[in-house]
Amino acid sequence: MTEPFVNGNKLQLMTELYEFSLADGYFSGGMEDIVACFDLFFRRVPDNGGFAIMAGLEQVIEYLKNLHFDEDDLAFLREKGVSEPFLNYLRDFRFACDVWAIPEGTPIFPNEPIVKVRGPVMQAQMVETVLLLCINQQCLIATKANRLVRAAHGTAVAEFGARRAQGFHEAVCGARAAYIGGCVATSGVLPARDFGIPTINTMIHSWVQMFDSEYEAFCEYARRNPDDCTFVVDTYDTIRSGVPNAIRAFNDVLVPMGKRPKSVRIDSGDITYLSKRVRKMLDEAGFPDCDIMASNSLDENIIRDMVTQGAKVDCFIVGERLITSASSPLFGGVYKLCAVEKDGRIIPKINLSENVRKITIPSSKQVYRLFDMDSGKAIADVLTTDSEEIDESKPYELFDPDFTWKRKEIENFVARPLLVKIFDEGKCVYESPSLQHIREYCTEQVDTLWDEVKRFENPHKYYVDLSEKLWEIRNLLIEEYKGVRK
Amino acid sequence: MTEPFVNGNKLQLMTELYEFSLADGYFSGGMEDIVACFDLFFRRVPDNGGFAIMAGLEQVIEYLKNLHFDEDDLAFLREKGVSEPFLNYLRDFRFACDVWAIPEGTPIFPNEPIVKVRGPVMQAQMVETVLLLCINQQCLIATKANRLVRAAHGTAVAEFGARRAQGFHEAVCGARAAYIGGCVATSGVLPARDFGIPTINTMIHSWVQMFDSEYEAFCEYARRNPDDCTFVVDTYDTIRSGVPNAIRAFNDVLVPMGKRPKSVRIDSGDITYLSKRVRKMLDEAGFPDCDIMASNSLDENIIRDMVTQGAKVDCFIVGERLITSASSPLFGGVYKLCAVEKDGRIIPKINLSENVRKITIPSSKQVYRLFDMDSGKAIADVLTTDSEEIDESKPYELFDPDFTWKRKEIENFVARPLLVKIFDEGKCVYESPSLQHIREYCTEQVDTLWDEVKRFENPHKYYVDLSEKLWEIRNLLIEEYKGVRK
Repeated sequence: MTEPFVNGNKLQLMTELYEFSLADGYFSGGMEDIVACFDLFFRRVPDNGGFAIMAGLEQVIEYLKNLHFDEDDLAFLREKGVSEPFLNYLRDFRFACDVWAIPEGTPIFPNEPIVKVRGPVMQAQMVETVLLLCINQQCLIATKANRLVRAAHGTAVAEFGARRAQGFHEAVCGARAAYIGGCVATSGVLPARDFGIPTINTMIHSWVQMFDSEYEAFCEYARRNPDDCTFVVDTYDTIRSGVPNAIRAFNDVLVPMGKRPKSVRIDSGDITYLSKRVRKMLDEAGFPDCDIMASNSLDENIIRDMVTQGAKVDCFIVGERLITSASSPLFGGVYKLCAVEKDGRIIPKINLSENVRKITIPSSKQVYRLFDMDSGKAIADVLTTDSEEIDESKPYELFDPDFTWKRKEIENFVARPLLVKIFDEGKCVYESPSLQHIREYCTEQVDTLWDEVKRFENPHKYYVDLSEKLWEIRNLLIEEYKGVRK
Repeated sequence: MTEPFVNGNKLQLMTELYEFSLADGYFSGGMEDIVACFDLFFRRVPDNGGFAIMAGLEQVIEYLKNLHFDEDDLAFLREKGVSEPFLNYLRDFRFACDVWAIPEGTPIFPNEPIVKVRGPVMQAQMVETVLLLCINQQCLIATKANRLVRAAHGTAVAEFGARRAQGFHEAVCGARAAYIGGCVATSGVLPARDFGIPTINTMIHSWVQMFDSEYEAFCEYARRNPDDCTFVVDTYDTIRSGVPNAIRAFNDVLVPMGKRPKSVRIDSGDITYLSKRVRKMLDEAGFPDCDIMASNSLDENIIRDMVTQGAKVDCFIVGERLITSASSPLFGGVYKLCAVEKDGRIIPKINLSENVRKITIPSSKQVYRLFDMDSGKAIADVLTTDSEEIDESKPYELFDPDFTWKRKEIENFVARPLLVKIFDEGKCVYESPSLQHIREYCTEQVDTLWDEVKRFENPHKYYVDLSEKLWEIRNLLIEEYKGVRK
């Protein structure tokens, strides 16, 4: 399995210039032995949804495994003002950080670390851009795909977005993320080759236009693709021309060959209405096994309405609104310093900012997901310091970190740590599961969420709480900085 | 100048599977000598703006120049059902089409061809995905950048979006498009290296947090970067801590070195209010030459308001909302068959669809932009058939193609053809201008538009009209298909 946008590319320079400047500053300022710990987390679920889906980790791993600098890179960084000693450090670069992450396919929530990097401050700083980019990119699309799949309520959803993707990399890795989120297939050749994602073929309007008549276009296509025969039926007029011609071509070409049609595709007009008319026409003509595919700027809201209104669609083809997550095209992951280890001391760090919602959670942390033993459903996530463990044998008191009088005691639960070790001092100690496995795991884990959390509008806010100890560290730091001018 | 996502990558497979299936169908069905003509155009300006900016052509050219298939590619396509004769054709593939395009940086409007491909139907079909992807990607970002730059009203706008870009390719080519649209710089190392775009360095919060105090962090940074010294001032408290510490550090470190500070950056809070306070503090402390940079989820609406309210900002740093065009993340370019040449005949082609707005304009076309000789302003674009010319010496009657009674006669104009030849039977006959030149050309051409067209809300709809002859061809085809069932 090759990765067209990771191996062989200059991903070592896929970063922002200030990352190198800062890393150079730490190195040249004699801070190279300081260990820093960074959290990657996000603040808001796209589309105001109740949860997101973790994705993009495999690409992060590939990047970190292959991170090195060649003389061309160094020459360019020299031009940009990077110091000679730091260029020498980069020449012999060996990734030496510890990395933890929440596995791909897991539902994730705002403000919890989904990736954590601990190591020499220069290194932990320099990888920021690519980590954010990969995680932001794929979490966005996996989350959107999962919304589409939930809206489709069992009907297949296929990803057909390449032409509207914001770039080649998005066309390929977005298709991967869409598959994790539950899509059944892609239109793209590269995602099929690189990730083994199933493809769906279709006919497009230009084929129909190339022939003197629609009927002739259909017959020729059927002759050439008897085992995978899909016609697009709206080039001229779906009901009066497209479907009658499709039925004629099925009867005239496929039936004599002993073959059956696969599907017809409707790409314009009111698809709910048309699909019912087309279904009836196909059934009456003896093709109840011919599927109906629908496309045309679909999203989860349109799909949900179509399902509710009884549209006769067997596969929703979603292009631009999935591959760009058009209604909410940002996954705002951030990467923030949470602790520093210096001279044997661990110092928790906070970023206060002028906006309350931008205040960070200090300390190197673990994320526990608490599941109810009876229902198997997820109750809450709790962030703890690294040294804490949650004792499942005793009742555990959850409390809201902002409104601390909101408290709830739970018992009969299991607490599962979500962050798993990926790199140990620069050595990869994690084997990515197969994409198929990640996709199944995603479905399984989304099933542990209450329906209330999965609601599209005003979903129930899933609890992401802090342990008492973590809450205290955070509060002390806020008081310290807001009380004292430094 | 190397291109990280074009050369050496498998862009020949960066396509949708059905493109190969259809091309195979044409080839294997004995249609390989048929010449097809495709238009690439868009239907709607992002953000409901009055115009878009053409960009992405250089990447299209690189792709077409390098298009070939190796044995690995053929092996994968064989698995996916592509026929042996067509695989042989691909093995010896040589691009043989004619291509025309509107040069990068030109303002463009809905429904006019911005790229036109004419050649063997298999080839003209197969290149669809990459052409759409490159043009959609860069037109989207160039158009958004131009909105931001217009909102900033002379204040610099810099692109800092890499971490939130939808993929590596977008981070790099998006920065290119942003520069074309008028941004002054990027944060990205690769866009700087590959396209020579100026970079801006900055400090981020983690640097401040790494030190025991904000003052110490600033002093160390100033010592290391005396000639390019920017502090981020909102880590703890902009007014009470950040700016006072910045001034102390300027005085304690830079002034004794005989150096001046470059800027401070505000990344949270009410930036209009804070920038005025900060400006006053810096001025009073003797640093009127220290710029103020502003960031924090800016877009053109916020920037316009800030400018109106007199914010004291010298550079707007725009990240996620530019690199994803967040408020309108789709540039819906389409690629439609407009004519077929068969047995010496040229047959105009139409796609009627079930939606009126999706009906295409048949025939191979030229786009003329008509400029008023007195004001130099653009009056209208007129689409003509290839064989027509617009006679500038006579009055010309424009008419609305939908409401044909809306007519207007113009005189004293020049008519400039916009589509220029890029490839001649597969040979590139066009030299891309320098990026700097494209950027200047963009500013110049945007100046030819009336302010009414540049308005953000409800802009004046610029005329894109058809010549009488083209209108007649289109109407005849609509009548033919809608009147007669085929």
